[in-house]
Amino acid sequence: MPSRPVTLSHRASLTKDQPISWFMQQAVENPDLISLAAGLVDVESLPGDDIAKVAQAILSDPASAKAALQYGTTPGYAPLREKIVARLNELDHRSPGEAYLADDVVVTTGSQQLLYLLGELLLDPGDIVLVEAPSYFVFHGVLASLGVRALQIPMDDDGMIVDDLEDRLRQLERTGELPKVKMIYTVDYFQNPTGLTLSLPRRAQLVEVARRWSKHHRILILEDAAYRELRYEGGDLPSIMSFDESREQVLLAMTFSKPMAPGLKTGYGILPNGIAAALARFKGNHDFGSSNLNQHILDRLIANGAYDRHVANLQDVYRNKRDAMLHALKTEFPAVTGTTWTYPKGGLYVWWKAPEGMETGPNSPLMRECLKQGILYVPGEFAYVEDGPFPRNEARLSFGVEQPERIREGIERLAHAAREVGLPRIQMPRVAGCRG
Amino acid sequence: MPSRPVTLSHRASLTKDQPISWFMQQAVENPDLISLAAGLVDVESLPGDDIAKVAQAILSDPASAKAALQYGTTPGYAPLREKIVARLNELDHRSPGEAYLADDVVVTTGSQQLLYLLGELLLDPGDIVLVEAPSYFVFHGVLASLGVRALQIPMDDDGMIVDDLEDRLRQLERTGELPKVKMIYTVDYFQNPTGLTLSLPRRAQLVEVARRWSKHHRILILEDAAYRELRYEGGDLPSIMSFDESREQVLLAMTFSKPMAPGLKTGYGILPNGIAAALARFKGNHDFGSSNLNQHILDRLIANGAYDRHVANLQDVYRNKRDAMLHALKTEFPAVTGTTWTYPKGGLYVWWKAPEGMETGPNSPLMRECLKQGILYVPGEFAYVEDGPFPRNEARLSFGVEQPERIREGIERLAHAAREVGLPRIQMPRVAGCRG
Repeated sequence: MPSRPVTLSHRASLTKDQPISWFMQQAVENPDLISLAAGLVDVESLPGDDIAKVAQAILSDPASAKAALQYGTTPGYAPLREKIVARLNELDHRSPGEAYLADDVVVTTGSQQLLYLLGELLLDPGDIVLVEAPSYFVFHGVLASLGVRALQIPMDDDGMIVDDLEDRLRQLERTGELPKVKMIYTVDYFQNPTGLTLSLPRRAQLVEVARRWSKHHRILILEDAAYRELRYEGGDLPSIMSFDESREQVLLAMTFSKPMAPGLKTGYGILPNGIAAALARFKGNHDFGSSNLNQHILDRLIANGAYDRHVANLQDVYRNKRDAMLHALKTEFPAVTGTTWTYPKGGLYVWWKAPEGMETGPNSPLMRECLKQGILYVPGEFAYVEDGPFPRNEARLSFGVEQPERIREGIERLAHAAREVGLPRIQMPRVAGCRG
Repeated sequence: MPSRPVTLSHRASLTKDQPISWFMQQAVENPDLISLAAGLVDVESLPGDDIAKVAQAILSDPASAKAALQYGTTPGYAPLREKIVARLNELDHRSPGEAYLADDVVVTTGSQQLLYLLGELLLDPGDIVLVEAPSYFVFHGVLASLGVRALQIPMDDDGMIVDDLEDRLRQLERTGELPKVKMIYTVDYFQNPTGLTLSLPRRAQLVEVARRWSKHHRILILEDAAYRELRYEGGDLPSIMSFDESREQVLLAMTFSKPMAPGLKTGYGILPNGIAAALARFKGNHDFGSSNLNQHILDRLIANGAYDRHVANLQDVYRNKRDAMLHALKTEFPAVTGTTWTYPKGGLYVWWKAPEGMETGPNSPLMRECLKQGILYVPGEFAYVEDGPFPRNEARLSFGVEQPERIREGIERLAHAAREVGLPRIQMPRVAGCRG
C-alpha cells in the first residue's frame, strides 16, 4: 500500500524555521568564521569550577542528592524561588510591604520557555502584540506560530518611544482593533538586538499608558529583562514591574543563561497573582517542571556567593569585549563613511547601520563579501516584521562569543567587506597595538 | 481606575489542573501518609555518586566544561543521540541496514515535553486520539488542552485489544469520523496505570491495523515506552516501532527519568524522518534545546557503563518492591473478597479492582477511610475519559516510592479501610515475618 501523508496541525503550518538557523549552518560549514552573529555567551568565563563544587556538594550528601535527583515541582524549587525574589527585591529596592513573593515565580527551561508559555496562555490567533522596532526576532517566530500579529513601535536612544506607542494604540482604536491588543513586549535592558535601554521616565510612562489603554481588557507588559545583570557602566534601573503598583500589569521574564550558564537552561518569570498559577497549569502539561538538579545547583550558587562573584566577573569580561568592538568600529568606520552604531551600556549587542542603500540582508553583496572574508553578522531585517517599510541596511553585531582580538579582527573584516561593496575608502592612520 | 480582567487564550480555558495535583496536596498536608499514589521513583537508589563523578569529570576539564555549559543545539547533544540509537538498535536487534539514526532523535525536557510537542505538531482541535482504557491520565490533560478527543480501547492481559481498536475504527468510519483519527497512543511496556504489556503478536498487528486504516492520512502510533527498561521478569519485547518497516508509522517516546534520575529531566523521541525536523522547529520556539549540561552528564553515564549498571540495580530494587506489594495483596485480599489485581512484570504500578459496587473515587467512602488510615492511591476513574461508562471501583497502586516495609503496611491499611467500608472480613492466618 502506498504511504499516506502525515497531516500536521494548523499551528505547524505557522511554525517556521527560525532565521537564526541559517547562521548556525554557516558557522558549522565555516569553522574559521569570526561570528559576530551568534547570541552565545563568552565560553572562557563559564564557571565550571563553581558549578562542579556545588554539584559535588549536592550529590555527595545523600539527603540533598535525593532531593535534587527526584522529580521537582511544576513551578520550581521553592528555596530557589525564594532567592530569586530576595535578589529582585534588593535590585528593585522594594520595601517589605511591596516585596515580590516566591509564589509569583515560575521557573522555566530558559526564559524562552517562559515567553512561549505566556504566549500560549494569553494569546489567541488574530491577537496583536506591540513590540519594539527592531525587536528580538526569536519571539517573532513564537508569535507567528501562535497566529499572533506583531506591530512595531519605533525606538530612540531611550528605548521604545512610548508616545509613538500611544499613537499606535489610538490608531488601533480608530480601526476597531484595540480589543485585539493583548500585550506589549519589550527587552528593556540593553536590548537584543540594539543594545538600547528603556529610560527611567519611560518605564513609568509605559506602565501608565498600558493601564490607561486597558479599556477592553488588561493590556499586559511583557518585560524581558534577560540582560539586566550584564551592565558595564551607569547605574542599574528599576524594573518596569516596580512601577506597577497594582502588581497586575507586568510580566517579568529573566534568565540564568546569560549571567551564569546557558547549559543550565534555567529562566524564570515573576508574574501577577493568578497568572502564575494559570501558567503552572500549562507547564504541568508541557513538562511538569524544569530540571530539578539544575535548580538545586543554582540555589547553591546564589547561596554561597558564587553567582554574585560570577556576575561581577562577567561585567569585566564583557565590558572589555564591548570596548574592543566599539574601538574597532571607531577606527574602521570614520564618521565620513556614513555608518553609525549604538553605544550599549550592557548586554551583548551593538546595532550597526551601513550607509543608506548598502543592504545587509542574507543575499546582499555585503553579506556575500563578509562570508568570503570570514565574518558573520545578523542582518537587521530579521528583527523587523511586515508592518510597513523598514530599513534594510542594519546589522546586529554581538561581542559575546569572540575574544577581543578576534572581535577587532572581525570588525576589520567587516570594514574590508563594506569597502569592497562601496563604502568610501578613507586613509586613516592606524593606532598601533591599541587596546579597546 | 478599576483594574481590567486578563483575557486568557482559548487554550487556557481547556487547560485544567491535572487531577494528580489533588494527591500532591494530600501528601503535603499529611506527611505520615503512605503514598501508593505518587508516580515518583525510588529515592534510595538514585545514583548520586555516579552523577557526581561524571559531573566532576565534565566540569573540571576546561574543554568539556565549556561545551556543557554553553547553549546546546535544539534537537540535542549529538553524541548522546548517537548513544541513544546505538542502545535502541541493540535492544531491538536491528541489522545495520535497518538501524535507527541519530538524526531521527529529538531530546526533550522529559518525555512529557515530547508528548506535548507531538500533540501540538500533529493535532488540531476536534481531532481524535485512540488510547487504552484505562490510560495515562496526564496525557489526557494534554489532549484536552489541545481540544482533542480521546476515545478508549479496552485492554486485556495482553494490552490494548487490537481487534477492538479495529472495530472502533470501523465504527468511526461509519459515522464519518475516521478522517479525524490522527493517532493511537499506547504505553506498551508495563503500562501506566495497569502494569500490563502489549503482547508480541499485538505489536505487529497494531502496526498493520494503523497502516491499513490510514485511508485519509497517516494514522500514527505514539509508542510511550517510558517503562521498557524497568523489567523484572520475562524477556524484553521489541518495540512497536521495530515492526514498522516503512519507518513512518510510529513515534517512539522514551525517558531517562525512570531508568536513571527524574532530576535530570531528560527524555527523547525516535521519530519518522521529516517529523523529527518539524518537531525541532516547535522545540526551537519552546526553548531551543533542553539542558545541555544534563545531556552531557547522561552521555558520560552511558559511555562509562554506569547507566547499564544502574538499570540492572533498579530492576532488583523494584522487583523486590513489586513482590512486597503482590505478596501483601495476596495476604490481605483473599480471593473470596472479590478483589483482583494485575501482575506487572515491570514498571511501577499494580492495577487493583475492588469488589463491584465499592467505589474508589476521590469522594468515595473508601478514599475517606484510606485518608483516615494514612494511605493514598490514585482513583482508577482518573485514567478514563468521558467515552461511555467506565468502572468506578479501580485504583492505581504504585510501588515506586515507598520501601518494601511501608508498601506492606500500606496494603494492610488499604485492606483495613476496605473492610471498614464493606469488604468481607475473612479470618486468615497471617504468615509471620514473611518477605515479599
